[in-house]
Amino acid sequence: MLGLGQMGSALAEAFLRAGHRVTVWNRSPAKAEPLVAQGAQAASSAVEAQRSAPVVVACVLDYPALTEILDPELPGILVNLTSGSPEQAREMAGRGGRYVDGGIMTTPPGIGDQRSMILYSGDQDALAEASGLLSALAEPINLGADPGLAALYDTALLGIMWSTLTGWLHATALVTADGATAEHFTPLATRWLGPVAGFISSYAPQVDSGSYPGSDATLDVHLATLDHLVHASEVRKVDAALPRLLHDYARRAVESGHGADGWARIIELLRAA
Amino acid sequence: MLGLGQMGSALAEAFLRAGHRVTVWNRSPAKAEPLVAQGAQAASSAVEAQRSAPVVVACVLDYPALTEILDPELPGILVNLTSGSPEQAREMAGRGGRYVDGGIMTTPPGIGDQRSMILYSGDQDALAEASGLLSALAEPINLGADPGLAALYDTALLGIMWSTLTGWLHATALVTADGATAEHFTPLATRWLGPVAGFISSYAPQVDSGSYPGSDATLDVHLATLDHLVHASEVRKVDAALPRLLHDYARRAVESGHGADGWARIIELLRAA
Ligand SMILES: NC(=O)c1ccc[n+]([C@@H]2O[C@H](COP(=O)([O-])OP(=O)(O)OC[C@H]3O[C@@H](n4cnc5c(N)ncnc54)[C@H](OP(=O)(O)O)[C@@H]3O)[C@@H](O)[C@H]2O)c1
Ligand SMILES: NC(=O)c1ccc[n+]([C@@H]2O[C@H](COP(=O)([O-])OP(=O)(O)OC[C@H]3O[C@@H](n4cnc5c(N)ncnc54)[C@H](OP(=O)(O)O)[C@@H]3O)[C@@H](O)[C@H]2O)c1
Repeated sequence: MLGLGQMGSALAEAFLRAGHRVTVWNRSPAKAEPLVAQGAQAASSAVEAQRSAPVVVACVLDYPALTEILDPELPGILVNLTSGSPEQAREMAGRGGRYVDGGIMTTPPGIGDQRSMILYSGDQDALAEASGLLSALAEPINLGADPGLAALYDTALLGIMWSTLTGWLHATALVTADGATAEHFTPLATRWLGPVAGFISSYAPQVDSGSYPGSDATLDVHLATLDHLVHASEVRKVDAALPRLLHDYARRAVESGHGADGWARIIELLRAA
Repeated sequence: MLGLGQMGSALAEAFLRAGHRVTVWNRSPAKAEPLVAQGAQAASSAVEAQRSAPVVVACVLDYPALTEILDPELPGILVNLTSGSPEQAREMAGRGGRYVDGGIMTTPPGIGDQRSMILYSGDQDALAEASGLLSALAEPINLGADPGLAALYDTALLGIMWSTLTGWLHATALVTADGATAEHFTPLATRWLGPVAGFISSYAPQVDSGSYPGSDATLDVHLATLDHLVHASEVRKVDAALPRLLHDYARRAVESGHGADGWARIIELLRAA
């Protein structure tokens, strides 16, 4: 295990809890101590760690950090859980060796929980060999041989997370401006994500087929109600950049003649950039 | 029932299915016909409809449309399910009469399903009197006496919906650019909303207390991974306005010294507008 930050330490602990033999290394050696206390071996260098095991799992800050410590003659499988772009992952795979890229879709407390997911893509034989080990971390989701796809799905899913979190913070800024508390509003917000997930599921085939019927709610209706969101933000001096951006997409779709379509039509504007 | 558009018709049908006596009215009379076939009475004018029942439910396009048809001497309770701003709802309540405002948090097919919610606020005695009737539509959520709060929560929740839908469409534009399908990606996206709801629940008390520890993931880490999202969008010529906006919030929070805080810190930027 290379890298014992918040995430790397959680990964190493999950391996230990599952009964695996684990060699750990971190740039600042002190972070290895709690893991050694739990039964890990501390390697004295990054290269020593990489030569000690058939599967090397890396989780450091970023790709430049990984490149600094990577053994060019790494004998085993490299499972890289460091966040990066799809392009970086493909370049790393192109260096040769048995390479699996991964994207961790949870925070450190979610490691070891099968409700969490980790996305993998890359060398399919290597992934099959490492899968017993990796299943100690979270549910492994195999996206196939393209080494860039795990990072792409990871980035894409994080984009949904930031959009949702920021939509929720904006909504919370609105309701708290009128005296509500975040703790009163939030259970309704999280419950509401259930129906929203239902809308998303119903729109996915629309995106694949390129036809976006507004049978549940039309862009005309969305645009009218988006006016209220922008207005409610302005009246309360809450930053309206996010509602204005959403309003702008709806307005452009309506103005180009798609007012009777549903929200999924917006993907055509995103792709046309 | 005033207004028999997509939503008004679904509401009238749910009342009929629950065994209530229902008088219906719509500007274009033809939309009353299927409801009359299901047992409703058709009123010949909006005023006649409003004088026919102890509870009048209105669901028309917007407040100007409602104002045109509203009986100034309406004898009963008015439950207004027309979408509008909190300010419009408060003004409507200020006209006198027994006024309940509502926000429907579902599309027409979700009416009659207790997993759906309708938010209410306003005259609490009137709401109690109408509650037997209203429970035929969806689970009623009572937000208290402020007639503006249902519309404010409604608008706020829709803001979360548009943010999440657009985040998902953006994510889908990214992964489909590399050959994935929306139908492959989307089940992971909707599953991922589960953990995202968990993050939101854990951030709500942070917002109320004004302290935002980055114990799960820091803004420094978010900012680095947001770079990948912007970059992945640009490389694929996918519109990057949404990721850039999110990146900008994270950057501003980091630059003002909050890089060790978590994402919930962003609410301070939204409120400071
Ligand atoms: N935390 C999360 O919720 C989460 C979720 C999904 C993915 N991730 C990803 O996991 C990776 C690690 O995140 P983290 O939360 O563990 O961050 P962290 O706590 O800040 O740890 C960063 C790690 O990278 C090491 N590092 C930094 N620069 C280095 C260099 N030049 N050479 C060698 N090692 C270097 C650090 O070593 P020192 O201890 O010596 O500084 C430390 O082990 C990141 O790519 C992150 O995006 C994190
Ligand atoms: N559809 C949804 O998913 C949904 C969800 C939540 C809330 N809502 C809200 O419910 C309300 C109705 O939406 P909808 O989906 O039913 O829309 P819709 O199908 O377009 O129906 C609009 C209704 O408003 C009436 N109307 C429009 N202008 C009028 C005027 N000047 N005077 C009298 N009646 C007028 C229409 O009458 P005509 O038939 O004569 O045109 C029709 O009954 C809106 O405020 C909407 O935001 C809808």
